[in-house]
Amino acid sequence: MSSKGLIKRSEDFSKWYNELVSKADLAEHSDVRGCMIIKPYGYAIWEKIKDQLDQMFKETGHQNAYFPLFIPKSYLSKEANHVDGFAKECAVVTHYRLKNAEDGSGVVVDPDAKLDEELIVRPTSETIIWNTYKKWIQSYRDLPILVNQWANVVRWEMRTRLFLRTSEFLWQEGHTAHSTKIEAVEETEKMLNVYAQFLEQFMAIPVIKGVKTENERFAGAEETYCIEALMQDGKALQAGTSHFLGQNFAKAFDVTFADKNGIQNHVWATSWGVSTRLMGALIMTHSDDKGLVLPPKLAPLQVVIVPIYKNSTQLEEISNYVNELKQELLKMGVSVKFDNDDNKKPGWKFAEYEMKGVPLRIAIGPRDMENKTVELSRRDNFNKTTISQNGLASKISNLLIQIQNDLLDHANSFLNENTYFASTIEEMNKILNSKGGFVEAFWNGESKTEQKIKELTKATIRCIPLEESNTGKCIFTGQANSKKVLFARAY
Amino acid sequence: MSSKGLIKRSEDFSKWYNELVSKADLAEHSDVRGCMIIKPYGYAIWEKIKDQLDQMFKETGHQNAYFPLFIPKSYLSKEANHVDGFAKECAVVTHYRLKNAEDGSGVVVDPDAKLDEELIVRPTSETIIWNTYKKWIQSYRDLPILVNQWANVVRWEMRTRLFLRTSEFLWQEGHTAHSTKIEAVEETEKMLNVYAQFLEQFMAIPVIKGVKTENERFAGAEETYCIEALMQDGKALQAGTSHFLGQNFAKAFDVTFADKNGIQNHVWATSWGVSTRLMGALIMTHSDDKGLVLPPKLAPLQVVIVPIYKNSTQLEEISNYVNELKQELLKMGVSVKFDNDDNKKPGWKFAEYEMKGVPLRIAIGPRDMENKTVELSRRDNFNKTTISQNGLASKISNLLIQIQNDLLDHANSFLNENTYFASTIEEMNKILNSKGGFVEAFWNGESKTEQKIKELTKATIRCIPLEESNTGKCIFTGQANSKKVLFARAY
Repeated sequence: MSSKGLIKRSEDFSKWYNELVSKADLAEHSDVRGCMIIKPYGYAIWEKIKDQLDQMFKETGHQNAYFPLFIPKSYLSKEANHVDGFAKECAVVTHYRLKNAEDGSGVVVDPDAKLDEELIVRPTSETIIWNTYKKWIQSYRDLPILVNQWANVVRWEMRTRLFLRTSEFLWQEGHTAHSTKIEAVEETEKMLNVYAQFLEQFMAIPVIKGVKTENERFAGAEETYCIEALMQDGKALQAGTSHFLGQNFAKAFDVTFADKNGIQNHVWATSWGVSTRLMGALIMTHSDDKGLVLPPKLAPLQVVIVPIYKNSTQLEEISNYVNELKQELLKMGVSVKFDNDDNKKPGWKFAEYEMKGVPLRIAIGPRDMENKTVELSRRDNFNKTTISQNGLASKISNLLIQIQNDLLDHANSFLNENTYFASTIEEMNKILNSKGGFVEAFWNGESKTEQKIKELTKATIRCIPLEESNTGKCIFTGQANSKKVLFARAY
Repeated sequence: MSSKGLIKRSEDFSKWYNELVSKADLAEHSDVRGCMIIKPYGYAIWEKIKDQLDQMFKETGHQNAYFPLFIPKSYLSKEANHVDGFAKECAVVTHYRLKNAEDGSGVVVDPDAKLDEELIVRPTSETIIWNTYKKWIQSYRDLPILVNQWANVVRWEMRTRLFLRTSEFLWQEGHTAHSTKIEAVEETEKMLNVYAQFLEQFMAIPVIKGVKTENERFAGAEETYCIEALMQDGKALQAGTSHFLGQNFAKAFDVTFADKNGIQNHVWATSWGVSTRLMGALIMTHSDDKGLVLPPKLAPLQVVIVPIYKNSTQLEEISNYVNELKQELLKMGVSVKFDNDDNKKPGWKFAEYEMKGVPLRIAIGPRDMENKTVELSRRDNFNKTTISQNGLASKISNLLIQIQNDLLDHANSFLNENTYFASTIEEMNKILNSKGGFVEAFWNGESKTEQKIKELTKATIRCIPLEESNTGKCIFTGQANSKKVLFARAY
C-alpha cells in the first residue's frame, strides 16, 4: 500500500491530501453521497482530540448532555437569520415507515406513514436546545447553563472532501445561557481561548484569533469569534468558532428569567464548536511527501520499534531487550509497538510508519545489541541518531516533548513567513497568486467593499484580529482610518 | 423539586420510574416524538458506562470507527431476514433541501430536491458496514476486523419510555469479521462475557447468560446470545445482545476472502450492542422510594460533604478541615463535593443528594469538629455511623468498595429469591401474577409451543441459559427430554 507513495505536495496539493487520507488509513468516502467513513486509525486520532477537548471543557465548568437528532421544521423558522443560514441544504425526514413493495422488488416508503410536520436532521442544535432551555430556566438561580454536546450533524453538500467538507460530520457544540451580556461575551471569548490553546498546545497549530465580518457571521449570532490557521498550500482554514448570540434565540424561543428583583429578562446565549474538520487542519499543517506527521500528543502510537535481524537467535535477543524497554515506556505513559512481524521487511515497515506519522521510530539490529545502542529516527525532520541504551526510556520521553515543541515552532515560522501586508489590490493578488498566505490590509468596514475585494482577489476577510493594530488607508477605497484585517483564500 | 418526593414503588412502579427519571434530573421527553433529552446528570452516568465499556473493548483488541448515519433504502433489502426486522419502523429521508414558502409563512420542502433513492436513518449498521467491509477484505491477512462504533440510532416507536424505549437512542455496535466460524462464535461469546462482567462488576447487576429462541433472534443472526436482568418489579430486561451472524451478511454483500491456499470463502460475522437502555436497568435494579441509588463505580459524584453550622466561624472551621479531606480523597481517585451553599438547609440537601443517588454523605457539625468525628451516611441502606476523622479518607475509599459489593450481593439475593420453577402453566401464572420474577420451565423447543405459552401467560422465553441443566417434561405439551428455559414478563 504505502509502497506506492504519494504525489508531491508541490505538484498537486489537493491530490496529495486525498492520497494521504486514503493511504494513511484515515477515512474514505462511503456509497452514501457526502458521508464519510472514519477508519480506525483516523478515528483514534479524533478520539485523542475529543478526549483532550472534553477535559478542557470540563475544567472550564461545562457538562455534557444529549439533545435530539431531529428538529421540527418550524423551529428553524423561529430565528429569522438562522433560518436563512441553515434551513436550506439539509436532510429532511418525511416518513416513518417502509413496507414491502407489492411486486416483491424490495421495500418502498409507506405513503400512509407521512409525518404531519417534517423533521430536519440537525445541521446545528441552537433551536432544539433553546426550545428545551425554556423549560429549564425560570430564575437567575438556574443560570448559567454550561452545556456541551458531542454529536453528528448533517449539512447537505454537493462537493465534498474528506474531513474538510462532508454532509455528515462529527463535532461538539457548546450551548450556554447567561443572565448578563457581559458574562455571555466572557464565555464566548473564554471558549475561543480554549480552542486556541488546544490547537497550539496539542495540535501544534498556531492560530490567529479574531472576529468575523457581518457577512461571514454565524446565522443568528451578534458576533462570531474564530480561530484561523494557515495550511501549507497558503490557504486559510477556519478551525473553530465561538458565537455570541445575544438574546436572539432567547427571544425567538421566549426564554426569560426572573432576576434578583423579580424582573423578567431575556437570557443571553453563546454557542461554540469544532468538528472533524480539525483532522484536515492537522494533516495540512504538518504532513509531508512521505505521509502523515503527527504531534506526539495526538499520535495513537508514539513510538514504533523495528527489529533488524537475520535469524531467530538475533530476534530473540532483541525481543528480550525490547520487552523491558516497552514496560518502562508504558509506565511513563508513552504508547509503543514492537513490530516483530516476520512477513514484512524493515524497509516496508519504515515506509508504513512514516505514512502513518508515528513520531519516533527505533531500529535495533545485532550491532546495536553488541554496542548497547539503538537508532532513533524522528518522523518530523528525519533526523537519525544512534544513542546508548542507557536511560533510553526517559530520553525517548523527552524527545517526544521536543518533537511536539519543534512542530509548533516550525508551524509558527511558516505562519510568520507567510503573513504579508498589502496596500494595493495588485500587491494582494501578486502575493496570493504566487505563494498564498495571510495578507493583512486595511478595510473601511463596509460589506460592499469586502464583496468587491473578494471579486477581485478571490480572498475573503478571514477575521478582524483581536490584537490591536494601527489604522490606515482602505486597500480598495483609500478611505482613511480603516481597520487592519486578515485576508486569505480559504478552505 | 425533590421536596415533593416520589410515589412508592409498591404503589405504582411505572410511575415511580418516570418520576425518578425526572426528579433525579436524568432525562426528559423532547417535543420531537419519541426522542429524549439526556440531561447533564444522566449523561454523566452514561459517560461512566461508556468509558468503562470502551476500555474493556480496547482491552479485548477492538478499535473504534465511524460509519454513515444514513443507509440507502436498497441495502436493507439485501439480507432477507434483516429487512423484515428493520425496514419497517424507521425514519426516511426523502429530500435534501428546504425553501422559503411563497406565502412567507416559513419554510417548506423543496419538491425539486427529492432524492433518487431514499435514505434510512440507521436503525443498526450491519448493512452499511458490510458494504464497506467488502472493500476492506481481500485476503485472510485482512482478518479479523474488530471494530466498534459509538453512535445514535433511530427505530420509530409509537409508545416510548425514557431510556427503555425511545425512537432515537445512543449505543455501541461492534461489528467483527472473521475467517472461520469457530473464531466468530468465540468472539460472540467473548463479548457476551464482557457485557456480563461489566454489568456485574460496574453496574452491580447480576445477569443470566443465554441464547434467544429462533422467534426472538436478531433479524439476520444465526444465534443471538443475550444477558437478562431482573428488575425490582419482577419483570425481566434484556440488557445486551451479541449475535453470531454466520455468513449471512457476507453473502448478502458478497464479502469473500482468499484463504492461505488462495481459495475464496465468505467471511464470518458477529455484531453486539448495548444502549442507553442500560440506564433503565441501572435505575430499576437499585433505586428506592427516596430516589436513585448508584453503584460507586458509576456515580458521577461519590461523596458529598454537608456542613452543619450556625455561624460563619463554625463554617470556616469546618471548611478548613473539609478542604484537606477533599484533597486527600481526590488523590485517591474519589470524586467529592463540599456543598456549602448557604441558601439551602441541610435537610433540603440531604433529600436532594438522596434523590441523585450519591453513594456516601458526610455531615459535619461543630460537635463533630470538637470530637474529631464525622457522620457517614450510606445511600444504599441508610446506615449512619459516627466515626473518627483519623484516617478518614481511606475509610471512605474502602466503604465505597463495600457499597459496590453490597449492591451486587443485594441484587444477587433478589435474583435468586425471585427465580422459580414451574411445572404447569397454572403455577407459572400464579408466580407471575403475584410477584413476577424469572420462571424456569421445560420447553419442547417448538415455536408454536412458545407462542401458546406466551398467549396463556404473557411471558416470553427470555433465554435458553448457557449453563447446562437437566431436561424434563415440557410445561405445555408434556413432551419428555425438553430443555429448561427461562420465562418472564419483560420490558
